[in-house]
Amino acid sequence: MTNTQVTLIQIDNYGPWTVTPEPRREVDLQTLQSRLYADLSQLFGNRDGYIFFSRFDNMIAVSNGLSVEDHARIQESVRNRYPVTVSLSVATGTSPIQALEDATSQLQDAGSAQDKTRKEILRGRTIDEQFRTETDVQLAHFDVNDATGQYTDRLNEFDTFINIEQGYAELMRYMREENGALSFFVGGDNIIAVCPDMDEAAYQDAIDHVREAVNVELKVGVGRARSPQDAGMAAKHALETCRATGSAVEFDFENA
Amino acid sequence: MTNTQVTLIQIDNYGPWTVTPEPRREVDLQTLQSRLYADLSQLFGNRDGYIFFSRFDNMIAVSNGLSVEDHARIQESVRNRYPVTVSLSVATGTSPIQALEDATSQLQDAGSAQDKTRKEILRGRTIDEQFRTETDVQLAHFDVNDATGQYTDRLNEFDTFINIEQGYAELMRYMREENGALSFFVGGDNIIAVCPDMDEAAYQDAIDHVREAVNVELKVGVGRARSPQDAGMAAKHALETCRATGSAVEFDFENA
Amino acid sequence: MTNTQVTLIQIDNYGPWTVTPEPRREVDLQTLQSRLYADLSQLFGNRDGYIFFSRFDNMIAVSNGLSVEDHARIQESVRNRYPVTVSLSVATGTSPIQALEDATSQLQDAGSAQDKTRKEILRGRTIDEQFRTETDVQLAHFDVNDATGQYTDRLNEFDTFINIEQGYAELMRYMREENGALSFFVGGDNIIAVCPDMDEAAYQDAIDHVREAVNVELKVGVGRARSPQDAGMAAKHALETCRATGSAVEFDFENA
Amino acid sequence: MTNTQVTLIQIDNYGPWTVTPEPRREVDLQTLQSRLYADLSQLFGNRDGYIFFSRFDNMIAVSNGLSVEDHARIQESVRNRYPVTVSLSVATGTSPIQALEDATSQLQDAGSAQDKTRKEILRGRTIDEQFRTETDVQLAHFDVNDATGQYTDRLNEFDTFINIEQGYAELMRYMREENGALSFFVGGDNIIAVCPDMDEAAYQDAIDHVREAVNVELKVGVGRARSPQDAGMAAKHALETCRATGSAVEFDFENA
Repeated sequence: MTNTQVTLIQIDNYGPWTVTPEPRREVDLQTLQSRLYADLSQLFGNRDGYIFFSRFDNMIAVSNGLSVEDHARIQESVRNRYPVTVSLSVATGTSPIQALEDATSQLQDAGSAQDKTRKEILRGRTIDEQFRTETDVQLAHFDVNDATGQYTDRLNEFDTFINIEQGYAELMRYMREENGALSFFVGGDNIIAVCPDMDEAAYQDAIDHVREAVNVELKVGVGRARSPQDAGMAAKHALETCRATGSAVEFDFENA
Repeated sequence: MTNTQVTLIQIDNYGPWTVTPEPRREVDLQTLQSRLYADLSQLFGNRDGYIFFSRFDNMIAVSNGLSVEDHARIQESVRNRYPVTVSLSVATGTSPIQALEDATSQLQDAGSAQDKTRKEILRGRTIDEQFRTETDVQLAHFDVNDATGQYTDRLNEFDTFINIEQGYAELMRYMREENGALSFFVGGDNIIAVCPDMDEAAYQDAIDHVREAVNVELKVGVGRARSPQDAGMAAKHALETCRATGSAVEFDFENA
Repeated sequence: MTNTQVTLIQIDNYGPWTVTPEPRREVDLQTLQSRLYADLSQLFGNRDGYIFFSRFDNMIAVSNGLSVEDHARIQESVRNRYPVTVSLSVATGTSPIQALEDATSQLQDAGSAQDKTRKEILRGRTIDEQFRTETDVQLAHFDVNDATGQYTDRLNEFDTFINIEQGYAELMRYMREENGALSFFVGGDNIIAVCPDMDEAAYQDAIDHVREAVNVELKVGVGRARSPQDAGMAAKHALETCRATGSAVEFDFENA
Repeated sequence: MTNTQVTLIQIDNYGPWTVTPEPRREVDLQTLQSRLYADLSQLFGNRDGYIFFSRFDNMIAVSNGLSVEDHARIQESVRNRYPVTVSLSVATGTSPIQALEDATSQLQDAGSAQDKTRKEILRGRTIDEQFRTETDVQLAHFDVNDATGQYTDRLNEFDTFINIEQGYAELMRYMREENGALSFFVGGDNIIAVCPDMDEAAYQDAIDHVREAVNVELKVGVGRARSPQDAGMAAKHALETCRATGSAVEFDFENA
């Protein structure tokens, strides 16, 4: 059984800030957002967590191994270095979507994302060290078969992007509906999904669905471990096995 | 008539680099990608251009006002500060998708994105200063009506993300097919489109299409100017007018 | 007794790299150096360590609490994100200068700083968790009395800088010769010293010396703890006590 | 004749901010300061200027070629991305120290560096484009002879640092007193000086003085150009000539 710890990170009252007193330059907003994400990647990543940029003003992390105190320190570090602050809400569960649902509700209960007085909320519970297991986190790393040969080297870059994007949009929705998994585009032709305890057939089914729906061919490596860092690295190695053998689904659970 | 100058930025041989000699940690790749994008935002933005992250390993910029020499300096700056290099290809035209098509072809002609020997290509032509006009760049800034009230404060963050994402996937495809425009998600509920000479009816049509196809309600501010920076800022002001008046499409062409 | 763990960080073969094939732009070198330092600040700091920029191509860290594996991961993270690599050498001792002497020797034994083939060295031993104590790290935080009123608001900025700099040059030399302490300018009018087990008289003596030698008036807060992070924060609180009471030397050893 | 345009950059009310409501973590302050410097390096550098970190909370730039509007945009970009704001004051003159004196006075006239209500000041005049000449900026790039062989590979890193630092402290003071030049340590064994119209004898005299005073052997390449960027690159090339020929002072004025 998986036990995913999910953290929702939300920039406090960000929308209004971006247009007050008048619209801020997009170049600065883009720089701010992408650097905040990069910093959070390091802050979570150096504690063996993973974070995904999703909408940039709302980000989602897999945070198994991070304590509430770790979250508080991350929150403090953002406050010390950015013109904005962040609220954090953490929850756990066997279903990633359910954990995120709980994390979101806790934050919504504290006030609107655009409530000026709701600032630097920190809520939720983390998994006690004694209850962590080697099977807590299951991550799947998808990529598109021969994306360079099929798309990048043949189509104009926007049409390549449309193909990758349609594949992602289909996969994210299907994986969420069928499995309660959270799938994130991470650049190039790569998608990483935070999964419950899914077996090979379930991954094959998702791949089949995307091929049938939008004609994009995926393969996937799946890893499982105590920490997101180790599960993610195992998934990458499994995906290398797919590349070497031509298989569509590979698991790397050796440590799990 | 618009005359968009489009630059394709491609990290050289990036895919193989990410797994050589073995897969690199995702946290580091994410940090690298988002910081490279942030730096390019500043490098293009400080010269009044705009860049979009799209797939991160391939990025697309609107570069009216940047010379070939400016591009060379950006290329040099990346080489001096990153473990990877970038190739740049620039082209111009009344149709953004056609300009990108040309830029992509020039780069593809130089070799595959995963060709080890194809490195730091710099190709194409920029618009001579004397031929630049106040109507060269048309940018449209879309957002989702009451995204905070409709989604962020009500749904779990992943379902919010799915809604925004489906709206974006639909808009990007429709705007490309109908108008040859290039639309990019830029965070939150915001999408910026690089457009040809489109009128109000064309924008209304795109908005109507997205509402009918995926039930996401958009509005849009449109700006036009000599530089992407000025066109983008005009679009933001036009979008503020939408917010103030409740209208779905607003233009701000005062300088154009 | 203190037991300081000191890490020397050296960019491999950096001098030659900066001028190959021809001199690289200073703006890019400065950006590279200061960002590498910022990243190492986070990488060491998120593990409760401290790092000082010193010469930028050679940096010195107090790394109590970081294992050899932590050092390896920091080294890997730099490799994954920069065009340069770093070598790390760690040593421990009751005398900070002796620990650094050992760390430096280990690295020098592996080859010259400008040896092309000497790359990513990682040497030395860290303090086993079981041997760490609450008195291992003693940090002193100095600042200049009323620097704003005496200098910043009265002199031109370069003459202010000269005064601060002469005070620092004198303190760094004296503290090293008399106490084997390592003192680093950290911006503004602040200097942080990594100290052995020094008492109040020793700090007062150093302050007196600097006043007599170059007429710069210092005060100092001293902290002691298991980790550099906690010792540094205790030193800051002690310095606040100096500010509040007008005293020249304050200790904050409550946790030690 | 040189005509140096100097900009003083001061973080507004920074000292109090660093300890309010209580001392902020040094790791975050160091990250903030070094990244702000890196960003300003890019913001000035992409407009062909140079900036030096000096005290980090006060930085000094050579800004020939930047208009008041450019300064305003830099100020805006900092406000949009940092939790602190900066004030900028610019002045020009044949003597760098006099220009800085004027720039500093203008800012001091607006209020104390720790005045809560003095925020985002922007004062001064820049050189009109029509009055700029090829001899406006003279930069000198010093380094220590065989620093690696003499120091880095032989002494412990702190003693190496002390030697470099004493050489710098002596040079900065002497160059300011004798020539009104502004000398800045830029990492490794490198010092860059912003100079008035100095001849070979004046540089030789400074080098002789430092050798006699603190026994550190320097050499210097000197460049002159319309912009800091070009003057700095010419100085680097001149320094390469020193390395190749063994001479102590070289000029590269070919474009001037």
